Amino acid sequence: MSGEKLSNKRIIFKDYVSGYPREEDMLVVSSDIELKVPAGSSAVLLKNLYLSCDPYMRGKMSKPVGKSYTEPFTPGSIITGYGVGKVVDSGHPNFQAGDLVWGVTGWEEYSVIQAPESLIKIKYTDVPLSYYTGILGMPGLTAYAGFHEICSPKKGETVYVSAASGAVGQLVGQFAKLMGCYVVGSAGSQEKVDLLKSKFGYDNAFNYKEEQDLNAALKRYFPDGIDIYFENVGGAMLDAVLLNMRVYGRIAACGMISQYNLAEKEGVRNLFSVVVKRIRIQGFIEPDYKHSYPQFLELAIQYIREGKLVYVEDVAESLEKAPSALIGLFSGRNVGKQVVLVARE
Amino acid sequence: MSGEKLSNKRIIFKDYVSGYPREEDMLVVSSDIELKVPAGSSAVLLKNLYLSCDPYMRGKMSKPVGKSYTEPFTPGSIITGYGVGKVVDSGHPNFQAGDLVWGVTGWEEYSVIQAPESLIKIKYTDVPLSYYTGILGMPGLTAYAGFHEICSPKKGETVYVSAASGAVGQLVGQFAKLMGCYVVGSAGSQEKVDLLKSKFGYDNAFNYKEEQDLNAALKRYFPDGIDIYFENVGGAMLDAVLLNMRVYGRIAACGMISQYNLAEKEGVRNLFSVVVKRIRIQGFIEPDYKHSYPQFLELAIQYIREGKLVYVEDVAESLEKAPSALIGLFSGRNVGKQVVLVARE
Repeated sequence: MSGEKLSNKRIIFKDYVSGYPREEDMLVVSSDIELKVPAGSSAVLLKNLYLSCDPYMRGKMSKPVGKSYTEPFTPGSIITGYGVGKVVDSGHPNFQAGDLVWGVTGWEEYSVIQAPESLIKIKYTDVPLSYYTGILGMPGLTAYAGFHEICSPKKGETVYVSAASGAVGQLVGQFAKLMGCYVVGSAGSQEKVDLLKSKFGYDNAFNYKEEQDLNAALKRYFPDGIDIYFENVGGAMLDAVLLNMRVYGRIAACGMISQYNLAEKEGVRNLFSVVVKRIRIQGFIEPDYKHSYPQFLELAIQYIREGKLVYVEDVAESLEKAPSALIGLFSGRNVGKQVVLVARE
Repeated sequence: MSGEKLSNKRIIFKDYVSGYPREEDMLVVSSDIELKVPAGSSAVLLKNLYLSCDPYMRGKMSKPVGKSYTEPFTPGSIITGYGVGKVVDSGHPNFQAGDLVWGVTGWEEYSVIQAPESLIKIKYTDVPLSYYTGILGMPGLTAYAGFHEICSPKKGETVYVSAASGAVGQLVGQFAKLMGCYVVGSAGSQEKVDLLKSKFGYDNAFNYKEEQDLNAALKRYFPDGIDIYFENVGGAMLDAVLLNMRVYGRIAACGMISQYNLAEKEGVRNLFSVVVKRIRIQGFIEPDYKHSYPQFLELAIQYIREGKLVYVEDVAESLEKAPSALIGLFSGRNVGKQVVLVARE
């Protein structure tokens, strides 16, 4: 009944964090694991290949106050998040050894997934498997649902994307161009700005850190105003955007990464623009759009094959580097989607 | 060709205002008027009966910065706003002497309306004519469109209304009760709180000025959270509401009266709730819903006749009192819809 025993490296969440998370808030430990699921169990044993670093994970590191859409991490327990893995053993009829899957897994070399129904079998392998943590995974569906379903874009409209070179932003800009929109993005370095223009086809881009006055910067790129704002950062940026929205503008509120590590959040003062300009602000999260995934996947894989959709990843080359990769998100150190390579298939 | 000449008392807007407007920002003057429209003109001459004091008028008193949905008042010219009048003379084929109308008119005894197409002929006169400045006028349509079209209410949902005894708020609460919702309102005096409960059928009500902690107050009245917030005040109240919204909550942003007279607006810090709880905030203004007026009117007049919809007005008894009545809105001095009686029919 017993299988091979192996050492399993794991990333443990030490304790709740306030302010910016540090590498020391996570621990690398090792324990033994048997490469079989227990007899009679319907679990799946995964060999993790890629792990995803995503901004929403910051919320899970805070001491919970009230309910959230996501459970907090448990101090002393493993970090969890989206990843790509290969089934090593399965007690579940839907999965068998050798299957490639993506979904929520543990930050470790091997994970026992007790409720594998949430895992999605990978259908197309003519693209990098890491894409299922990004363009073909949660961030991809986020960009697709947020832009197409929340923003109701029309050809010729003006679109502004913040954190535009990130896992979601780079896709929103490309979707907007495919729709025939004018699209401008902001990011936090010249390298990212260059990427937006040269790689993702943004009509223009700017480095928000070099702007004294965000309102003036937006007026420069949008002299006639913004129809659609894809909101990834919040705070002062949102305040400046509100002054530049057009009548009947739409804001898809996907994230507010500038605020996640602040004890006292920035105040947004220009909300009366929402009334005057009849703006719609709609918050959304990707889990509400799982039903759209199959349709999104077919569209995205086609675009990728045709070269109409490209994707840039920032790959940390080992599990030990995962804590550093995760915290790098909050200073914008990553260029493109932050992924951790745990093992090659 | 010339008609009777009469003295015409008028309220003049002196100059742009910053901070709270004062009576001294308006002047009562008198000039002569001929009670006929010029030959060949398509204007209408109105005898003004009731004038409406509405919060949006504060925006027209500020020095314009950028475009707004409403033109500013012109220093040295007359104040304009919604009112009810009787046609004295008409050069327009759609109107004739004796017609009762409502729409935008001047703050004066007699007004020449150069583009009378915007006036609406009053269909039902078995209710007080002043109702066409309120329950059957702009505030009525605002409440109806804002609640039914923006909020998509469902039976059993929880509804919170700020400035709940005002021209719009008293109606939103009654519409919510007619829909089978649980509804709580806030206002700024015990008298208004009593009115909400005894007259308008609110399930509960509180005086926001007596609450140290608006978040705690809302938790008391909405232990399971708020599905729909009808936003009339903005600022700190909106911030507290965001903490108490339920998942998929809707906020109809109708006005933000607490902010209109502040040079530095209050900052709203809890907007990340919009993402987490997938909240929709939709700004709107009544002119976008003029097409719904006929349908609204039929519904409202029926409800009024059946006693299902009631309305409370605060009537200033002469044109000279109009400036004081208008500025009273911003300290909440009015109890119910603020109207100015200029002349009885």
